[in-house]
Amino acid sequence: MLMSEQIRSLLHLALQEDIGRGDITTQLLVPEGLQARATVRVKQAACVAGLPLVDAVFHLLDPSVAVTHWVNDGMDVAAGTPVCEITGPARSILSGERTALNFLARLTGIATNTKRAVQVLEGTGVKLLDTRKTTPGWRMLEKYAVRMGGGHNHRYGLDDMVLIKDNHVALNGGVQNAIARARKGMALSQKLEVEVDTLSQLDAALEAGADLILLDNMDTATMREAVLRTAGRAQLEASGNMTHGRLREVAQTGVQYISMGALTHSAISVDVGLDIEMPEEAKEI
Amino acid sequence: MLMSEQIRSLLHLALQEDIGRGDITTQLLVPEGLQARATVRVKQAACVAGLPLVDAVFHLLDPSVAVTHWVNDGMDVAAGTPVCEITGPARSILSGERTALNFLARLTGIATNTKRAVQVLEGTGVKLLDTRKTTPGWRMLEKYAVRMGGGHNHRYGLDDMVLIKDNHVALNGGVQNAIARARKGMALSQKLEVEVDTLSQLDAALEAGADLILLDNMDTATMREAVLRTAGRAQLEASGNMTHGRLREVAQTGVQYISMGALTHSAISVDVGLDIEMPEEAKEI
Amino acid sequence: MLMSEQIRSLLHLALQEDIGRGDITTQLLVPEGLQARATVRVKQAACVAGLPLVDAVFHLLDPSVAVTHWVNDGMDVAAGTPVCEITGPARSILSGERTALNFLARLTGIATNTKRAVQVLEGTGVKLLDTRKTTPGWRMLEKYAVRMGGGHNHRYGLDDMVLIKDNHVALNGGVQNAIARARKGMALSQKLEVEVDTLSQLDAALEAGADLILLDNMDTATMREAVLRTAGRAQLEASGNMTHGRLREVAQTGVQYISMGALTHSAISVDVGLDIEMPEEAKEI
Amino acid sequence: MLMSEQIRSLLHLALQEDIGRGDITTQLLVPEGLQARATVRVKQAACVAGLPLVDAVFHLLDPSVAVTHWVNDGMDVAAGTPVCEITGPARSILSGERTALNFLARLTGIATNTKRAVQVLEGTGVKLLDTRKTTPGWRMLEKYAVRMGGGHNHRYGLDDMVLIKDNHVALNGGVQNAIARARKGMALSQKLEVEVDTLSQLDAALEAGADLILLDNMDTATMREAVLRTAGRAQLEASGNMTHGRLREVAQTGVQYISMGALTHSAISVDVGLDIEMPEEAKEI
Amino acid sequence: MLMSEQIRSLLHLALQEDIGRGDITTQLLVPEGLQARATVRVKQAACVAGLPLVDAVFHLLDPSVAVTHWVNDGMDVAAGTPVCEITGPARSILSGERTALNFLARLTGIATNTKRAVQVLEGTGVKLLDTRKTTPGWRMLEKYAVRMGGGHNHRYGLDDMVLIKDNHVALNGGVQNAIARARKGMALSQKLEVEVDTLSQLDAALEAGADLILLDNMDTATMREAVLRTAGRAQLEASGNMTHGRLREVAQTGVQYISMGALTHSAISVDVGLDIEMPEEAKEI
Amino acid sequence: MLMSEQIRSLLHLALQEDIGRGDITTQLLVPEGLQARATVRVKQAACVAGLPLVDAVFHLLDPSVAVTHWVNDGMDVAAGTPVCEITGPARSILSGERTALNFLARLTGIATNTKRAVQVLEGTGVKLLDTRKTTPGWRMLEKYAVRMGGGHNHRYGLDDMVLIKDNHVALNGGVQNAIARARKGMALSQKLEVEVDTLSQLDAALEAGADLILLDNMDTATMREAVLRTAGRAQLEASGNMTHGRLREVAQTGVQYISMGALTHSAISVDVGLDIEMPEEAKEI
Repeated sequence: MLMSEQIRSLLHLALQEDIGRGDITTQLLVPEGLQARATVRVKQAACVAGLPLVDAVFHLLDPSVAVTHWVNDGMDVAAGTPVCEITGPARSILSGERTALNFLARLTGIATNTKRAVQVLEGTGVKLLDTRKTTPGWRMLEKYAVRMGGGHNHRYGLDDMVLIKDNHVALNGGVQNAIARARKGMALSQKLEVEVDTLSQLDAALEAGADLILLDNMDTATMREAVLRTAGRAQLEASGNMTHGRLREVAQTGVQYISMGALTHSAISVDVGLDIEMPEEAKEI
Repeated sequence: MLMSEQIRSLLHLALQEDIGRGDITTQLLVPEGLQARATVRVKQAACVAGLPLVDAVFHLLDPSVAVTHWVNDGMDVAAGTPVCEITGPARSILSGERTALNFLARLTGIATNTKRAVQVLEGTGVKLLDTRKTTPGWRMLEKYAVRMGGGHNHRYGLDDMVLIKDNHVALNGGVQNAIARARKGMALSQKLEVEVDTLSQLDAALEAGADLILLDNMDTATMREAVLRTAGRAQLEASGNMTHGRLREVAQTGVQYISMGALTHSAISVDVGLDIEMPEEAKEI
Repeated sequence: MLMSEQIRSLLHLALQEDIGRGDITTQLLVPEGLQARATVRVKQAACVAGLPLVDAVFHLLDPSVAVTHWVNDGMDVAAGTPVCEITGPARSILSGERTALNFLARLTGIATNTKRAVQVLEGTGVKLLDTRKTTPGWRMLEKYAVRMGGGHNHRYGLDDMVLIKDNHVALNGGVQNAIARARKGMALSQKLEVEVDTLSQLDAALEAGADLILLDNMDTATMREAVLRTAGRAQLEASGNMTHGRLREVAQTGVQYISMGALTHSAISVDVGLDIEMPEEAKEI
Repeated sequence: MLMSEQIRSLLHLALQEDIGRGDITTQLLVPEGLQARATVRVKQAACVAGLPLVDAVFHLLDPSVAVTHWVNDGMDVAAGTPVCEITGPARSILSGERTALNFLARLTGIATNTKRAVQVLEGTGVKLLDTRKTTPGWRMLEKYAVRMGGGHNHRYGLDDMVLIKDNHVALNGGVQNAIARARKGMALSQKLEVEVDTLSQLDAALEAGADLILLDNMDTATMREAVLRTAGRAQLEASGNMTHGRLREVAQTGVQYISMGALTHSAISVDVGLDIEMPEEAKEI
Repeated sequence: MLMSEQIRSLLHLALQEDIGRGDITTQLLVPEGLQARATVRVKQAACVAGLPLVDAVFHLLDPSVAVTHWVNDGMDVAAGTPVCEITGPARSILSGERTALNFLARLTGIATNTKRAVQVLEGTGVKLLDTRKTTPGWRMLEKYAVRMGGGHNHRYGLDDMVLIKDNHVALNGGVQNAIARARKGMALSQKLEVEVDTLSQLDAALEAGADLILLDNMDTATMREAVLRTAGRAQLEASGNMTHGRLREVAQTGVQYISMGALTHSAISVDVGLDIEMPEEAKEI
Repeated sequence: MLMSEQIRSLLHLALQEDIGRGDITTQLLVPEGLQARATVRVKQAACVAGLPLVDAVFHLLDPSVAVTHWVNDGMDVAAGTPVCEITGPARSILSGERTALNFLARLTGIATNTKRAVQVLEGTGVKLLDTRKTTPGWRMLEKYAVRMGGGHNHRYGLDDMVLIKDNHVALNGGVQNAIARARKGMALSQKLEVEVDTLSQLDAALEAGADLILLDNMDTATMREAVLRTAGRAQLEASGNMTHGRLREVAQTGVQYISMGALTHSAISVDVGLDIEMPEEAKEI
């Protein structure tokens, strides 16, 4: 179930900011009882994500609106594919249209962007990860879209895993001390990852026993050496300004994971549209 | 004052989703009383927007954190420019860092994208408008970023103006009938805009007396003709899949406004980073 | 659709303040399963407004309660007219009664007060406007009641239109400067109205191009002169301590609008009552 | 302390509905740093109530605004009396003005209306009570204004006391049965009042032992008889369409309380205004 | 109706804290459409309370889950008794299980604890009262459980009755002054109780006319004397570190009420469990 | 930082339920400006937890109240020890007293209960864990109190770790299949624990590679065997109706963790009290 309290709050914000005191045009020009049917189409080739948000927008706005999915989130579709159908009061369809499409367009954009990167990695066995560089308020949704595009999720938030970064290391007198201190206070359910910049830091991290090690901004050769030294004692994640172009080369170093902030922070919306059919008689009012 | 109830809710969502049950790494590895100073830098040439959000994130998280702006929203800065300084408890700075940067990166991305388009239009006298194709929950913020980039805001939401679109026209037996019906019920404070696809619809709209007319997806020649026919009787807005490349040509048709969804739906985040300095003694803990 | 987020919040407040920790009398003395039917009557001649609030109160309290309207909002009814019927659990009807009636009584009071003023203006073609002198928290509802009584709405809030008042004029070196400065920053969707006290300010406003001009506290003769000078170049609104007695005289000056704070701030509730019928057998418990 | 969670919510609603997306006129025409001083005056003779709401509105809007009271709630003032002074950013004063005045005007209206009724009762020893016929969302505030006007509060809500009305009596086979059943389930902290229409119901109520008895819509002679029969065994409250004109006659029957819905449901706002002084130099901007 | 706004908020908190970003195990290992049936059993002899909370938890989580009660709140059951059955999607049952059981276990613990004390008092005619020593956020629920166990509720909160304690007495120059001052300002619906430590304070309280008198931490002999002196002029409540062992002795002094904080602050949860049956075919997935 | 959004909501609920429409006794009997000083004492030997909640209650109620801690959470104190001092308006101290003490009493009860169990385990090296059997709405607070008592936290909620229980195993054709299926979909940051009832399930779990294995309701001999078979390949947690009496014996089997629901579900409040000193002159009012 995708709909947490958090997402419900975002939906409320979204409808409130668009509809505010009311959709005045629709109230003036669309008769109250009029029923209509609309089709949502993706106008570019894309990997779809966000259909449950279309449901949720209309459900919140007017529970008498029905949404039927023609495809599922995670499917690749050609340009022009109808992805869902919406039936119900014409006023409600028109008032909810923009909000619903804005959700679908952005999430489909992220899934499509992710899918393109996943395809580059095909056959390498490397898992593609997102980051915390997401749109504030949208974390759960954007991480969902990444999964729909075939990617995997790194930690959801600061409470989800211990991730020791450069500042933490500096403050604690080196990688080994930092890991040791963290291990003492961690909860049972938590994993520990540490970020390293150099091979000597890597050695320290291996010695101290990290679950995961993030190789930060290393060149390909250094990464290859890091993989050799690690020899399976921890899982390795390559990170740092990753682009689609460099992905395959990095994957071939033997790391288990590559994380890529651009999956979310540089995704652009996919073009989606809604075509509405009104009953013939309506046009004569 | 930028901080509405709406934006405060988004800030709460944002901090909650990132921090959740607590920033466990920082709690384990950063001493409670430790003070630090951090500098936020924009890593690419950009038009800055979102500094008040940096303030707001830290104010919400910990009112003892102080943020000093080195530049103002709306200013163009070179790659590497420090834009603000943050001082206060190291724990709070580290825990709020990602959320604050995510706000700043996206809004600066939109302002920068807008600035680029505004520069294309320089000297034409045409105003560049945004649309309602914004990230749900972010309408006010993204429209603010557009203004910081030199653009202008179209309506904020469905309650802000009467905008008669194709479906409303079809349902009401033509442009003139639709305008007449809307005029009867509109409130004193509202303006009326109508979307037209053809020159004959334009004629009808002019006759019926629209305040603004949106020329939807017209080619340049037709737009030029529309401007001639209108002869100042209404203001004209060109719209429809507008790109940076086509902007200047459209502007030269003589329309008063060009609206462009890509300002927001296709903006990508600008790269921003935070460098933290800890006091020397802290490193020995 | 009348039910915005804002109104839902007011409904929650209203039920919470009246029911609090529970309707103790009803819990002690009315059996849980007992069904009943109640009729709501308006006890004075009135113009009805607020029936959707009766629905909403009971829907929020207990979705199994059904409300059937016998008349519609905006209709004039004689004293004693049944306006709606409520069926469902007796407990819920009794617990929601006072809140529902309080909404209906106040809104019907405003609609009736408005209707009386609208009737005075009949045949003059002048539109009667409300103001922002509404009960805090009730803006949308009271403006709705004004419409039901045949009045029109002035702006909904401070974000809805530029309205330059005396203080703004004083701060900006006169009417013309103020209008010019405002025009530069206004959004596309916004209209501009300016308040003037004298005919020379009126001239300045006409020159600078206001959409609407508010004639503040002018005597009838001056208003007549204002209409002549304006000669259709802007729309005129007469305002300032307007009473039912003076309305017709003002209307005959030729202004397009008269605004009247008393529509809302001096409306009193219309007397409404609820008669409940319990099934015979219930009386024997 | 007057400010409950409930009142805070109403304040939020009030500011949100008036300011919405921002006070656009003030943002365009009043410079950001400008400081000003304003005086609030009551324009009619009145009993003041609501000054803490003026504080609260401005505190919520902008904590840097300061409000100084020249009089206290509950004081009678002559027309034109300055009741408080507001200093702070001119933008904030102008943006909060209408909301603050709307609170003050309505509550002062209720206090003044109450004071007039209390004066009629002077010397009789009878206490004047309000009812639950209050503006939904405003219960606590309006009951506060009644106290400021010298009245007393009946129960706050349905959870505050057992009050057995005609329907409860009918459902429970008479006054005595109803009282007996209620007594069994009541909490320690609760009092019991019963509404009676006839003297024989009164006898039953006295026998069963009510703390208070509400004489509903009785004529003066019957009330006098009721007082005789009661002989101090319970406290008596006269109720039902009470007007200022009839108050004294009813008081002289010897009842302890008179309740009067009109204190709140038929109060109209008192005229209040705010005069702002800007610094001289501001006028030259 | 048990479900106030307050309780709904607590339910939201409860589900949010347990489910957070999602029940990951269930999402990974239980198929989406799978239906199941579960039985909730109380594993110790107990007096049941909290079944409506089981309903509410599942209703909030997934309205398609149905809960059937086999017993009612307030009933005594043997160890092993099935108290309700839950049918619906297996995912929802598993995700809501712990929260629902935690509510039921604690409330049943309180009802059972209360029942044990009520049984000690059997035949004495003394009513057992709870106190305000409840789990913050749970006041209404815990007072409900006390009633289910056969106890009675003291005041719900600080707004529910005047209760003059030692500090209030000290500040007001003695019991009589304090009572007199309170009487002047109390609302019609409020009762007055005063706490006394000594017999001379009791005399003062009787003289001043308290509705209830709380005998604080008196020994049994003093209480007996207090009952004699009071002679029915007020109701008496014995209070102060009451244990099950001392209850009967205190009851026999002749007081009307005994209050006991331990009913809530020293109740421990009763062991409850949920057994789920999955359809046979499910096991082969 | 302990104060999450979640805890703030619980604090609001707590103050609202106790203070509701206002602390009427205090308003009637304590003068508005009166300052006082109060000391909070723990009346039994205890391990303190919850002092930050005392701060938070008073800060929310009245920011002018100051709280000074004399001890820290996690410290063992003797009966009668003053733990903090509260200074500020007497009204605020009296109105917040009960809520603040209720938080402190319950959390100190849990810490003390935990401390007693931790002491039993002293020297064994085994870590004591809590469970999800916490008071709904209090998860974070109760887990905090467990840490203060020297215990460790198991997972916070269903989103925090994969924990495969009997139902999940049954639905997925055995322990190995269940683990394998879960591994495929788990996020990077998540650990996997599996519950086993028998040694053969243990073998399967070891083979499939669980991070942690929960030995559910095993007798001591079986646990000892489980430890031998595991031979360090996973961490082992003993669980199931654990009592203080059995703890040491279980610890000596060699498991790494023991979890114990009774730490929270069977904790009772520790007795805490607040003594207030008023200034001498106050007593003469």
